Amino acid sequence: VSAVPRRIRLDLAYDGTGYAGWQVQPGRPTIQGSLEEALARLQGGAAVRVRGAGRTDAGVHARGQVADAQVALAIEDAGITHALRAILPAAIRVLTVRTVDDGFHARHDAIAKTYAYYVDRSAAGDPFLARFSLHERRRLDLDALDEALALLPGRRDWSGFASSPCVVADRVRTMSAARRVSIRPTLDALAFTADGFLTHMVRNLVGSLLEIGVGRAAPPRILEVLASGDRRLAGATAPAHGLTLERVDYGVTMRAP
Amino acid sequence: VSAVPRRIRLDLAYDGTGYAGWQVQPGRPTIQGSLEEALARLQGGAAVRVRGAGRTDAGVHARGQVADAQVALAIEDAGITHALRAILPAAIRVLTVRTVDDGFHARHDAIAKTYAYYVDRSAAGDPFLARFSLHERRRLDLDALDEALALLPGRRDWSGFASSPCVVADRVRTMSAARRVSIRPTLDALAFTADGFLTHMVRNLVGSLLEIGVGRAAPPRILEVLASGDRRLAGATAPAHGLTLERVDYGVTMRAP
Repeated sequence: VSAVPRRIRLDLAYDGTGYAGWQVQPGRPTIQGSLEEALARLQGGAAVRVRGAGRTDAGVHARGQVADAQVALAIEDAGITHALRAILPAAIRVLTVRTVDDGFHARHDAIAKTYAYYVDRSAAGDPFLARFSLHERRRLDLDALDEALALLPGRRDWSGFASSPCVVADRVRTMSAARRVSIRPTLDALAFTADGFLTHMVRNLVGSLLEIGVGRAAPPRILEVLASGDRRLAGATAPAHGLTLERVDYGVTMRAP
Repeated sequence: VSAVPRRIRLDLAYDGTGYAGWQVQPGRPTIQGSLEEALARLQGGAAVRVRGAGRTDAGVHARGQVADAQVALAIEDAGITHALRAILPAAIRVLTVRTVDDGFHARHDAIAKTYAYYVDRSAAGDPFLARFSLHERRRLDLDALDEALALLPGRRDWSGFASSPCVVADRVRTMSAARRVSIRPTLDALAFTADGFLTHMVRNLVGSLLEIGVGRAAPPRILEVLASGDRRLAGATAPAHGLTLERVDYGVTMRAP
């Protein structure tokens, strides 16, 4: 392997608790910033830009984030993986590094992303899950929750669940799946797969779903918020720490020959 | 319920990461100290002594610690549970509170304790388990590990696995079970049940077991360390953060009528 520039795909998992989110922010620890620093160090200081598939918010975690970067390193992919694992903190883990076609773009090429929001419904709250789930003390009507989730899939304008920092003009996205996965008797994941998500969309959806779960609104309310396009009808934004970017899907394998 | 003094049993789970262990130490955050402060607050400031079944080290976690305390509170057990859950941080969770016979002693009455040491054998290391498991990058021979574990149960003098701060004279304990539980393909728990444990005993045992797992010693070495009673023959003490007190067993139900 020569130090000729090549594009690599990085598959990542991270505990976002101590980070100000994915995106680089001067003077604050971010996932993108940590990766760019680590890769620059491997390149003897030459700056690297890392592009992520999803710009996770401060405190949001990932089990299957995908990023790409152009590097000029005379090291095989396995060597880069090894070096990054040694440099990066235990909170940011590189699952795989592979050389891909130079045209690969982690965000543009993604055809779907899956986010899961974890809800710990145990009475006491599990201290082992406290960083990664919302402890919901109120009793939830799971049937109502499932009924509301089943209404979500489809191609829709999701403005009703976008937070004000959302600046994109086109707010139409296709959600292909929205369902509750029972992980343990008192632990559920609310999982959403779509071709794209607006700012805080999952956390806003979960806020409204919890309103339905506790009986403050009926399942069809979820569609009323969507139809009105008015955030003020929705529930509160659920806290960031319950959210994890689970996976990013690509239509074709982007691998250099 | 009147404020007549009564003894309560507390079942607890905690993430020990941010704590200097179970036992009260002036000026440092401890589990016992946090509980005593919370109970004193419920009693309008009157001091309470909380006795734990196991004095977990700094950084060690619990999923089933048991403690007892004498309180004078005109609140039902459920009310105490509720109040403690509201006062204590997310890292310390009260699973149950129940009034017990005044003679109940969480440590003296325990007939067995089970500790589990979690080993994350994934190549990258799972950031969601980083606080609660040891990331072991070396390849482990699981058969050798199982063989060594199978040699452990029995009534023995465990001096060979006690660390120097251990001041007890009688170091004979009966280990009723020692086994590896495969939790996921790359996550194992090394679980030990005994009627008592010496200082750092599990962490020292795990240190020697890992030496055997990586092939630096054969399984019978574990008994040689025991026979010699000499700590210097054992492996390094495994780090605290991989250890969790899983459960404490009592022979009879200690419940007030």
